[in-house]
Amino acid sequence: MSNQFSTDVQHNTNVRWRLPAVCFVWQLSMIILFGVFVRYNEESDTHWVDYRKGNNITSDIENDFYFRYPSFQDVHVMIFVGFGFLMTFLKRYSFGAVGFNFLIAAFGIQWALLMQGWFHSLDYTDGKIKIGVENLINADFCVAGCLIAYGAVLGKVSPVQLLVMTLFGITLFAVEEYIILNVLHAKDAGGSMVIHTFGAYYGLSISWVLYRPNLDKSKHLNGSVYHSDVFAMIGTLFLWMFWPSFNSAIADHGDGQHRAAINTYLALASTVLTTVAISSLFEKTGKLDMVHIQNSTLAGGVAVGTAAEFMLSPYGSLIVGFFCGIISTMGYIHFSPFLEEKLKIQDTCGIHNLHAMPGVIGGIVGAIAATAATNTVYGDLGLENTFDFTGPFAKRVPTIQGGYQAAGLCVALCFAIGGGIFVGLVLKLPIWGDPADENCFDDEIYWEVRQFLLTHVSTGIKH
Amino acid sequence: MSNQFSTDVQHNTNVRWRLPAVCFVWQLSMIILFGVFVRYNEESDTHWVDYRKGNNITSDIENDFYFRYPSFQDVHVMIFVGFGFLMTFLKRYSFGAVGFNFLIAAFGIQWALLMQGWFHSLDYTDGKIKIGVENLINADFCVAGCLIAYGAVLGKVSPVQLLVMTLFGITLFAVEEYIILNVLHAKDAGGSMVIHTFGAYYGLSISWVLYRPNLDKSKHLNGSVYHSDVFAMIGTLFLWMFWPSFNSAIADHGDGQHRAAINTYLALASTVLTTVAISSLFEKTGKLDMVHIQNSTLAGGVAVGTAAEFMLSPYGSLIVGFFCGIISTMGYIHFSPFLEEKLKIQDTCGIHNLHAMPGVIGGIVGAIAATAATNTVYGDLGLENTFDFTGPFAKRVPTIQGGYQAAGLCVALCFAIGGGIFVGLVLKLPIWGDPADENCFDDEIYWEVRQFLLTHVSTGIKH
Amino acid sequence: MSNQFSTDVQHNTNVRWRLPAVCFVWQLSMIILFGVFVRYNEESDTHWVDYRKGNNITSDIENDFYFRYPSFQDVHVMIFVGFGFLMTFLKRYSFGAVGFNFLIAAFGIQWALLMQGWFHSLDYTDGKIKIGVENLINADFCVAGCLIAYGAVLGKVSPVQLLVMTLFGITLFAVEEYIILNVLHAKDAGGSMVIHTFGAYYGLSISWVLYRPNLDKSKHLNGSVYHSDVFAMIGTLFLWMFWPSFNSAIADHGDGQHRAAINTYLALASTVLTTVAISSLFEKTGKLDMVHIQNSTLAGGVAVGTAAEFMLSPYGSLIVGFFCGIISTMGYIHFSPFLEEKLKIQDTCGIHNLHAMPGVIGGIVGAIAATAATNTVYGDLGLENTFDFTGPFAKRVPTIQGGYQAAGLCVALCFAIGGGIFVGLVLKLPIWGDPADENCFDDEIYWEVRQFLLTHVSTGIKH
Repeated sequence: MSNQFSTDVQHNTNVRWRLPAVCFVWQLSMIILFGVFVRYNEESDTHWVDYRKGNNITSDIENDFYFRYPSFQDVHVMIFVGFGFLMTFLKRYSFGAVGFNFLIAAFGIQWALLMQGWFHSLDYTDGKIKIGVENLINADFCVAGCLIAYGAVLGKVSPVQLLVMTLFGITLFAVEEYIILNVLHAKDAGGSMVIHTFGAYYGLSISWVLYRPNLDKSKHLNGSVYHSDVFAMIGTLFLWMFWPSFNSAIADHGDGQHRAAINTYLALASTVLTTVAISSLFEKTGKLDMVHIQNSTLAGGVAVGTAAEFMLSPYGSLIVGFFCGIISTMGYIHFSPFLEEKLKIQDTCGIHNLHAMPGVIGGIVGAIAATAATNTVYGDLGLENTFDFTGPFAKRVPTIQGGYQAAGLCVALCFAIGGGIFVGLVLKLPIWGDPADENCFDDEIYWEVRQFLLTHVSTGIKH
Repeated sequence: MSNQFSTDVQHNTNVRWRLPAVCFVWQLSMIILFGVFVRYNEESDTHWVDYRKGNNITSDIENDFYFRYPSFQDVHVMIFVGFGFLMTFLKRYSFGAVGFNFLIAAFGIQWALLMQGWFHSLDYTDGKIKIGVENLINADFCVAGCLIAYGAVLGKVSPVQLLVMTLFGITLFAVEEYIILNVLHAKDAGGSMVIHTFGAYYGLSISWVLYRPNLDKSKHLNGSVYHSDVFAMIGTLFLWMFWPSFNSAIADHGDGQHRAAINTYLALASTVLTTVAISSLFEKTGKLDMVHIQNSTLAGGVAVGTAAEFMLSPYGSLIVGFFCGIISTMGYIHFSPFLEEKLKIQDTCGIHNLHAMPGVIGGIVGAIAATAATNTVYGDLGLENTFDFTGPFAKRVPTIQGGYQAAGLCVALCFAIGGGIFVGLVLKLPIWGDPADENCFDDEIYWEVRQFLLTHVSTGIKH
Repeated sequence: MSNQFSTDVQHNTNVRWRLPAVCFVWQLSMIILFGVFVRYNEESDTHWVDYRKGNNITSDIENDFYFRYPSFQDVHVMIFVGFGFLMTFLKRYSFGAVGFNFLIAAFGIQWALLMQGWFHSLDYTDGKIKIGVENLINADFCVAGCLIAYGAVLGKVSPVQLLVMTLFGITLFAVEEYIILNVLHAKDAGGSMVIHTFGAYYGLSISWVLYRPNLDKSKHLNGSVYHSDVFAMIGTLFLWMFWPSFNSAIADHGDGQHRAAINTYLALASTVLTTVAISSLFEKTGKLDMVHIQNSTLAGGVAVGTAAEFMLSPYGSLIVGFFCGIISTMGYIHFSPFLEEKLKIQDTCGIHNLHAMPGVIGGIVGAIAATAATNTVYGDLGLENTFDFTGPFAKRVPTIQGGYQAAGLCVALCFAIGGGIFVGLVLKLPIWGDPADENCFDDEIYWEVRQFLLTHVSTGIKH
């Protein structure tokens, strides 16, 4: 009781008024903004029947819905089950992992539809944002950046802080995305730069500002228990399996989506083997560590994001996956302790190893692959289609494109680190209901927990 | 032992002969009825190659399979994993939740193919039911009604009772569906009325008839344990993520499916925020309750079911979700205790809050949206397509349609309550092997349970 | 400690050098072989835009990606989540189940792309294997055979042995598949023969060679605990739900895929009821056994694999499922003990009941259905399309086809048993780091396990 009192002085974790207020006000704002700005696009509007006639579209199946909806649903699963369950590995923070992930993603997709809509889907004839299935996918992508960031601060922040972090995160994301994809005209189908590099350094910067020197006080909860590790594998596998859909979801119709899926499938397969190899190699009895299997096996999907649509070649994808498995697992073994001790960055889920490093590698691979693109390999039309060398960019050549790809990576890093430091400072204000050091990684702070253990209650009907 | 004896007098839960007999006889009946009645339709028959030529279909991809199969699989996941895992939240009834859900759905889809087939897919030239992918989806939908009803009686009935409940439930469903969709020509793409309102009041009526005044005896098992709540979140999330597929699965090709998915995606996002807000607001320390997060977050999907195909507008969907999150969560906090104490309805999963109230709201929203439909918003062709104002209904106008929509809601309620009371009385017969009050919510009654707890057995290889 | 010492003499389970070495060398070999041999096919290459023009393909949606990608993702889920989680039922081997399943599948799909590519997708103009989405599906199929085999030896082998088993398994698979599908020109869309019969007898033969007379020493770990059974149901349900995608994934475009999905859906529904019936019937108090529900409910999907594309008729599918549920469950009750005691085959997951017997039945059903095919039922063109009676096989008739189907089953059996015995002997070499009899079914041998039990640590913040 005295413990509780001393805690309350600095850390009042009662979010009773703050959390409902933020949820209500923000949701009402969304309704108003959607009312003013958001409408169906021509493929999801009842007027499509007229549009079809006007545009000589012969079959219902040529609606973008049929090109992208299966991929959208896979991406949706990655966002809610993938990220949500991946973070359930902590022994006593599974509710927070899957529940807060759910909350911030549900808010984030709405805000992302607006922010991305203003930049990409604004119909200048009537000032409305016109949405269709591709917008839904992009909103999910945008949220992915914030969920990655959540991984760095998992267990150490309140749900109100997470919502604030998401509000700013989505905003920053939409701007950097616009600069990278539209201004620089860089390609980033699977978001190695736009999503992973941005999301990871955004989260790490926030965690750096929110550094807790006495986090050791809740050390006993900062780890897994047998079944929580099995729950986390649900997240890992759904991310791993559906990553080809993630990287191909907004790629070009036809060969673009097809190739992106193949490249991702292969990179991920390769990563699994090197992750297992390094995990076993660095443990004195050769045992495997679930932390590595849950996370590093995904690094190949991150790193092949930018170049997924390119003619990376099947073996090129395998090579990318090969190195990312090694680097990511080594990161967990060597780099995470260094980050925490020397750079004062506490990274609960190790997003530096899963998203940051592989994301940067992905950006670099993309730049190299773009630079190396030739008419021989791509074909004249293929090159034009793949890199969208049309309109104002009709005269751009692969080598120049490579430079812009690299510039895109820098933009992602700047927005992430600058934005992250700013948002971190905002979150440091003592008004958000964050937990005390000794109460981190504990669901009992923000959740009603009825009973932890399944005990055997005799029922009198044993045989 | 004396306990067991006293129990056996009234409640012999040994289903050894009854359960196998029902399964065998019913499955054999299905085989015979399918043999007499069910055949492939023109798109799943080897003669499709001839049909294509005759109907000038230019590509294999214009087979309905490619329009609907991805949605079908999402719906299938909702039925078996979604409903199944949602109900695993009870600490000692997870086998029953996921296992009996599996059993009754597997029987139900067969019986639904027949019942719905006779009403909707009967080929009058040869008296056969011709099935394709849309029939599979509709069978899954039909079963959803019975699984919703299962939620009200979870833990309190035997598998034999569940099968009986499903047999009657599917039958009633097919008739009310025919009246609502064909006779009244109401629209209900996502089944707010046909599936949710019907299923929920059917289950609640049964539970009312089967009221157990001494259910308190098994109170200690009527609650969750930490990991059972995490399992339930698997169900919640798969339902939540795939609900856009549910509401769009049998919508019109093209813009119809596209729009239904968008509306549902938005309504659900909105619901999550208001659910969290209310859950936190009504707990004195602002903590969240997993029961609300697992259930009320889905209410928006229920309520946007009827109007999913309509031009509800993105903000319209957000508004529907906004209120349903509030109403559903308030239902768990205030209305469920009232239902149990005053109306004598014991509702294990709170389906009144998740399906009944949002279902009725969905029906009303649908009626209003239909009444408000105009040629300006929909376009002439769009209005005709969306509401199927063709054939005998060519002269119907939106305001009339609104009236028929409201009539549809009443039909669903009447069938649900009338049918539920009748079936409840049938299930009250003391022949079905239901558990005694003190053995409710306990898997050991109907399942071999080997070991409840994971204990650490020393293996002699610790380091 | 003395225990550990005595164990180490025969069974050094330290795989520290062996496992990383195998992973690295094999992954590097994959990269080199892919570099030499594997390229994109015309539908996943940037030249597709030219190919489209040349082949008069009017729309992007006629890329095979859109016909098969949704099915591919479902199959992918079956391989990684389905098989992986199905095997988590053991109380202390969930990491090994889902983790090693992940490892061998990730390696297997790469090796399968090469092996199957040489046989089926080699472009003779340039000596390259050209891959697209169908190759990804086939690679997943190929891996399924090895994962089935894993079920027989679950908990009794090291990860190095599993990789060796997979290397040989994929190789044998590719050869038998080529003989069955190309040389004999048998049809096997869902792989009853090629995948299930082969995989199961391959695994059983290996298990026979590796017989452990003293396996009783780890008997206390060879069973489930409450929540591990719930985890296993995740695997069961994803396999069950997506099996229609499995059997239809590489079926003919259009009616072929459509019909295969319907047949599988029905067969599986029927199986559930007879599994429940038999499970209840053979337990003296009529209780259900989770082992049966987890496994035998899937037997119908296995048995309808070969004939999935045929005009089996809806009732035909129900009949196949009906008998397989009975046979498979009876197998668990009566045949598994016999196999272990008399034939010295220790089959951890009971793959004989789930894959071997239903697989053989599936082969026989396929042979009968092919023999019985008539022009009346199929139509002239339909018959030709379904059985590919074109090119060198233009003159084959259904009765002859039936004979070749039966021959295919024999080929699968021969390769499985012969190959399994050979590989079993290889795996018997004392160099692979397999566990001692007393350490079987224990994750602590190959995994870092931090904490088994979720204990309640007081945090001082109880209210």
